[in-house]
Amino acid sequence: MAIFDSDAELMDRRDLAQLQLERLQATLHRVYKNVKFYKKKFDEVKFLPEDCQSLEDLSRLPFTTRRDLAESYPYEMFAVPLREVVRIHSSTGSPGAPIVMGYTARDLRNWAKLAARVLTAAGVDRDDVVQVTLSYGLLTSAFGLHYGVELLGASVIPTGPGGTARQVGIMRDYRTTVLVSTPSYAQVLADQMEAQGVDAKNMHLKLALLAGEPWTEEQRREIESRLYLTALDHYALSEAMGPGVAGECEHRRGMHLQEDHFFPEVIDPKSGAILPAGELGELVLTTITKEAVPLVRFRTGDLCRLQYEPCPCGRTLARISRIQGRSDAVVIVKGINIFPGRVGQILAGILGDEPLYQLVIGREGHLDYLEVKIEVREGLFFDKMTQQREFLLQLTRKLAEAIGVQPRVKLVEPNSIARDRETSPLVIDLRK
Amino acid sequence: MAIFDSDAELMDRRDLAQLQLERLQATLHRVYKNVKFYKKKFDEVKFLPEDCQSLEDLSRLPFTTRRDLAESYPYEMFAVPLREVVRIHSSTGSPGAPIVMGYTARDLRNWAKLAARVLTAAGVDRDDVVQVTLSYGLLTSAFGLHYGVELLGASVIPTGPGGTARQVGIMRDYRTTVLVSTPSYAQVLADQMEAQGVDAKNMHLKLALLAGEPWTEEQRREIESRLYLTALDHYALSEAMGPGVAGECEHRRGMHLQEDHFFPEVIDPKSGAILPAGELGELVLTTITKEAVPLVRFRTGDLCRLQYEPCPCGRTLARISRIQGRSDAVVIVKGINIFPGRVGQILAGILGDEPLYQLVIGREGHLDYLEVKIEVREGLFFDKMTQQREFLLQLTRKLAEAIGVQPRVKLVEPNSIARDRETSPLVIDLRK
Repeated sequence: MAIFDSDAELMDRRDLAQLQLERLQATLHRVYKNVKFYKKKFDEVKFLPEDCQSLEDLSRLPFTTRRDLAESYPYEMFAVPLREVVRIHSSTGSPGAPIVMGYTARDLRNWAKLAARVLTAAGVDRDDVVQVTLSYGLLTSAFGLHYGVELLGASVIPTGPGGTARQVGIMRDYRTTVLVSTPSYAQVLADQMEAQGVDAKNMHLKLALLAGEPWTEEQRREIESRLYLTALDHYALSEAMGPGVAGECEHRRGMHLQEDHFFPEVIDPKSGAILPAGELGELVLTTITKEAVPLVRFRTGDLCRLQYEPCPCGRTLARISRIQGRSDAVVIVKGINIFPGRVGQILAGILGDEPLYQLVIGREGHLDYLEVKIEVREGLFFDKMTQQREFLLQLTRKLAEAIGVQPRVKLVEPNSIARDRETSPLVIDLRK
Repeated sequence: MAIFDSDAELMDRRDLAQLQLERLQATLHRVYKNVKFYKKKFDEVKFLPEDCQSLEDLSRLPFTTRRDLAESYPYEMFAVPLREVVRIHSSTGSPGAPIVMGYTARDLRNWAKLAARVLTAAGVDRDDVVQVTLSYGLLTSAFGLHYGVELLGASVIPTGPGGTARQVGIMRDYRTTVLVSTPSYAQVLADQMEAQGVDAKNMHLKLALLAGEPWTEEQRREIESRLYLTALDHYALSEAMGPGVAGECEHRRGMHLQEDHFFPEVIDPKSGAILPAGELGELVLTTITKEAVPLVRFRTGDLCRLQYEPCPCGRTLARISRIQGRSDAVVIVKGINIFPGRVGQILAGILGDEPLYQLVIGREGHLDYLEVKIEVREGLFFDKMTQQREFLLQLTRKLAEAIGVQPRVKLVEPNSIARDRETSPLVIDLRK
């Protein structure tokens, strides 16, 4: 079984701990010196970078949240001058402003290397032809694995999303062996093949690397049996890097976390206390090699378990379990994080103050949809149907721009959305 | 004035000619040995690779056309095994099947380097923040400059297309200095700024690198005065590489052609005879460093002039004039090459045989549209409106998938499209 970077991935855990400590100390010095946000945070708890003498000392520092990142929009979290930055990404749908991610040339080299590790662990080698159906753009998802495939020397076909019939044709004609997509799009592709009468058995597919939305072992089994391939999970965290943070090997015992670049903790999301290995809690990551935007104790919001038992693949890196849910209110629709409270802020921005509203999320076929119900008040109805239509179109467009997903906006009668969050919660997720 | 690769860009022209000859000889040997298509072509004119003793000898070889590339779909033109290929791109809208482009790791390194040359010649340096609004995907356009920006050490923001209001926000907040887009999208952005009340003077924009569709000096002046920047032209030829083949320097005396990678000829499109420097004709390029898919005497279809007079910037590389038009019937809509005859083939595939049809191309605001008029025959009209609508939707979808542009399909009365190609040509281009 191939390992991309055996020096790092098979490292003795004592050596790894020493390496982590050195990199952590360097990171803390760097952010204290270059990022006002961290200087202030460290000073508040009277922590100097030189106080970090062991990995345990890290727990004395406060967490960093998505809200912190959003409030530093656009460049306040950058620990290097803009001229050192060679790539800028951004995530939408966060509370408040978008979150901006920056990468130095070395950050990009590390990213490609870590993506290549995930790909190699999944069984990809230079003979493979990898079709990337994720969206290339401000989000990190497609670029993450794209650069890893190139570094590995496999072939990448950057189709991007959409054009499903054409994707199937390319997959067949170009002899694609590895599919990179969301789990739901893998199912859409399987449907399309059936509709076109294309037998997946006659394709060259051997592997699908899936992530970007919550998915289950049942989905994995369905995708594997319909597409005649192995489907593996990986972890793509935009704020820390993008895809490449962690990924499954063929043994499927959780996703190997690149601990020489990300120092993990699992905490109780309520108390913030660090939980012992194996317990379910919120993953907290500290980036220990990132130059442009280092993160100290970043609360990912993702619920999982950390496992340190040896893996038959030989990798000594810890593993995180399949993500079991979110510790915050975020919902993921079509791979985009949506903070329900943000929808209210946007509506308030348009309507003057916040109306009663409710999000309904569901799935049609394999595709997610988001419905935004808004309770109508005096003045929100118009006599003329055309005027109302125009208003709805505008609302839809503004919401789509702000949250990154095209919603269906539905105006409902006054008092039809109950005030009781128990019987009528902010989010109704019909996918569960 | 900065030059990215002065060894190559300022090379003595005799040294350049010697380098070109050596690279040409290596290329001819490689394609003769590895690509059946070239072996056959060379054999037909009794030409052996060792017969190439001077650059003039190249003219004894036949041309390679887009049709040749399409007929070799997908991998017949590849001069290296697929395992050497790390990237696959494709262009749509060609006659027959799509054209598939492959790149080895070295091809990609060269591509990034040549894109960095074009960017540097335009005045981009590592302090710049470059917003790429072109589409990332199977087409080469966005990726072409993206990798060049990274190599240069400037910052790239890969927004991709669309979301114009958001693009303006990013441009302002992220302090974008360089815009990469099509000329028409630059105009759309200017409109959007006006609509949002954003004064372009207060942005940080200094440069726009525009290509991907025919544009004029009038458009350049309009874009420059509305966006308060310098707008420069470059040449993006997907089949040979993508963006990076040639680009303007600040002196705007044509686009410097990367002659150490592409050997140019300008021919009479009718007779195929080579024309002297300065005369208008069809550009023919031979790639002399490409490993994956080398092209010998590739007819670009683009009409321009070759100029060898010294440029004040010091670059000794020849220049090509602004592209003056096309030698074939191709029309460019929204940056996509459309071969009008291909539309007929697709319609024939759907309807059983080819109907009378006509393409009308125009511009609404700054955006191109394509209307496909189809003459109705017996059986093409349906009693039920819903059935007809469904049929139109299907036609539109299939055409959009095949040619890469969403057309407006219009069914017209029998005998309303005249048979006379003079008074009623296949293509009516209202943009001219």
